[in-house]
Amino acid sequence: MKNIYFTPGPSALYPTVHGHIQEALEKDIFSISHRSEAFKQIYRNTVVSLRSLLNIPNDFFIFFLASATEAMERIIENCAADSSFHFVNGAFSKRFYTIANELKKNPQKVEVEFGNGFNFSNLTIPDKTELIGFTQNETSSGISTPLENIYEIKRHYPEKLVAVDIVSSIPFVDVDYSKIDCTFFSVQKGFGLPAGLGVLVVNRRCLDKSLALKKKNLNIGSYHNFLSIKEQGDKFQTVETPNVLAIYLLGKICEDLIEFGIEKVRKETQLKAGMLYKFFEQHKDFEPFVKEKTFRSQTVIVVNTTVDSEIVINKLRQNGFIVGTGYKEYKNGQIRVANFPSHRIDDVDKLLDCL
Amino acid sequence: MKNIYFTPGPSALYPTVHGHIQEALEKDIFSISHRSEAFKQIYRNTVVSLRSLLNIPNDFFIFFLASATEAMERIIENCAADSSFHFVNGAFSKRFYTIANELKKNPQKVEVEFGNGFNFSNLTIPDKTELIGFTQNETSSGISTPLENIYEIKRHYPEKLVAVDIVSSIPFVDVDYSKIDCTFFSVQKGFGLPAGLGVLVVNRRCLDKSLALKKKNLNIGSYHNFLSIKEQGDKFQTVETPNVLAIYLLGKICEDLIEFGIEKVRKETQLKAGMLYKFFEQHKDFEPFVKEKTFRSQTVIVVNTTVDSEIVINKLRQNGFIVGTGYKEYKNGQIRVANFPSHRIDDVDKLLDCL
Repeated sequence: MKNIYFTPGPSALYPTVHGHIQEALEKDIFSISHRSEAFKQIYRNTVVSLRSLLNIPNDFFIFFLASATEAMERIIENCAADSSFHFVNGAFSKRFYTIANELKKNPQKVEVEFGNGFNFSNLTIPDKTELIGFTQNETSSGISTPLENIYEIKRHYPEKLVAVDIVSSIPFVDVDYSKIDCTFFSVQKGFGLPAGLGVLVVNRRCLDKSLALKKKNLNIGSYHNFLSIKEQGDKFQTVETPNVLAIYLLGKICEDLIEFGIEKVRKETQLKAGMLYKFFEQHKDFEPFVKEKTFRSQTVIVVNTTVDSEIVINKLRQNGFIVGTGYKEYKNGQIRVANFPSHRIDDVDKLLDCL
Repeated sequence: MKNIYFTPGPSALYPTVHGHIQEALEKDIFSISHRSEAFKQIYRNTVVSLRSLLNIPNDFFIFFLASATEAMERIIENCAADSSFHFVNGAFSKRFYTIANELKKNPQKVEVEFGNGFNFSNLTIPDKTELIGFTQNETSSGISTPLENIYEIKRHYPEKLVAVDIVSSIPFVDVDYSKIDCTFFSVQKGFGLPAGLGVLVVNRRCLDKSLALKKKNLNIGSYHNFLSIKEQGDKFQTVETPNVLAIYLLGKICEDLIEFGIEKVRKETQLKAGMLYKFFEQHKDFEPFVKEKTFRSQTVIVVNTTVDSEIVINKLRQNGFIVGTGYKEYKNGQIRVANFPSHRIDDVDKLLDCL
């Protein structure tokens, strides 16, 4: 029996991935030149499918990077001369802040305790802030920040750029791109793909900012600065030799999800999240870590365990179910269960039966 | 009939890659957590196999990046505060220089015409230079710089760090690591693997330099600065979610090459290069672009064509052989033929028969 991976990423492969990889081998996807027409066709297809699936407007540009972590670095390099501001409520939002610090951008932050949501009243963001960073779905704590709160911040500070990490909520999360400036994600979570690709979606204002910094002779990075990626991207090309397979597979999975129906994906995600939270609320050995329902992630369910989580994880593993540990210091007291499009209702049923 | 790719990268897959990918699918390599023991085992295995195959000493550290282009950026960020020097003789050595420029490191260069080697007499490198960059095998022009010349520069300037791009000569090139400070390559060329992984090999002096820059509060990059990668690497971990498949496959191919015998790989490479150069020297429609034999790359053979190269390339394609075009402005007047371990003597024979 094959294991079912409910880990928060890398996670279960989307069921069609095996077939797409076989096809890639047959079609010599691994050997074609990244400067060939065949590659340009792949690039174009992936951009078109992704735009269609996620409803990304034409005035937003899609960039392929190596990871979501790289996306954080490139956003900081290209969207802030010396002042970013971060909403920190877990390991990944903290990393966004840390990267800004490492790149000498004097970041500021509002920070709440692990497992909490933000209180948006009485919040002031310094005037000089150029870029505001959100982690919409904290993979470490299972906290989801409502999009409305993020849009509201953008309405209050229209001159500042707003960047939103949707790494572990995409493609469930339905972003209104007109109300933010930039989002990013990786593919080994909700898309059920092999790791090794980050996707960054930026609007014209981000490009303008990058150009303004360049004109001031500031360091906006080298081969992966926004202007270089955009210039190549306009020709359906990348600056460097990219992870061709990953770009190919992302396009294929987008087509599969379009065929399945994105609304159906979203409804099923909510249904499965409901099943999971209800089960853990009622079980004597478990309780959802996030108390306030508004902040509960629908895609990464974090659960406190009364016994050492290792016992739970091992028991599940013996039955073919792999779930995630708690994040770092929460390793032994929590488990994390991913709820991605790859996870069928039937799989969730079986997991809960086993628990 | 399957095509045989003689393109200079991406190129033909090493014959065992198909099987390794199937095994990766069966063993859930795509789904395992990059924080799991299973991943650490893969990481460790790849480092050990690579070290063994390439004879990399234990005091050199192996870093996994996304591409060789990224390696150039990270070297510049971590090994120079404000002064690098570059040997430029083609598109990729030029890129190394350009990246240093983009990162505001005031690079200087010695530049020779496309297709020429360097004259190392009467060469002065400024005192303040911290880092010297070489592209040992220029994939754009087919020029190879003899390792002895590079070692000689290091002997003359022992205090400066010497970084050597061996992207398209590895694993043929046999580097004496004690005579340089850092090398880098990608895997879609000589290793016959899917694109999407860069490998950077650095010694302690590079790490010390990175630390010194950090202590001066200079920007050495964020998640992929040398110190962060080293810290995680010591635990057989990566900073970000990496291209797990690529790291896995690299380890497997290193094992395969060790079994085949690296000396045999090198001998066969020379034999095939000899066949190719001899053929093109004697053919009325072709001539090797690089005139001086000392500078002729054994792994990327660049050939002038008397007719438009498109005609040659299309003719070969009809017979199942894919060769590369000339680089950029040389596109129509040259072809490039790769000679990697994936290309068997028999394949080269067939290609030459067809020509």
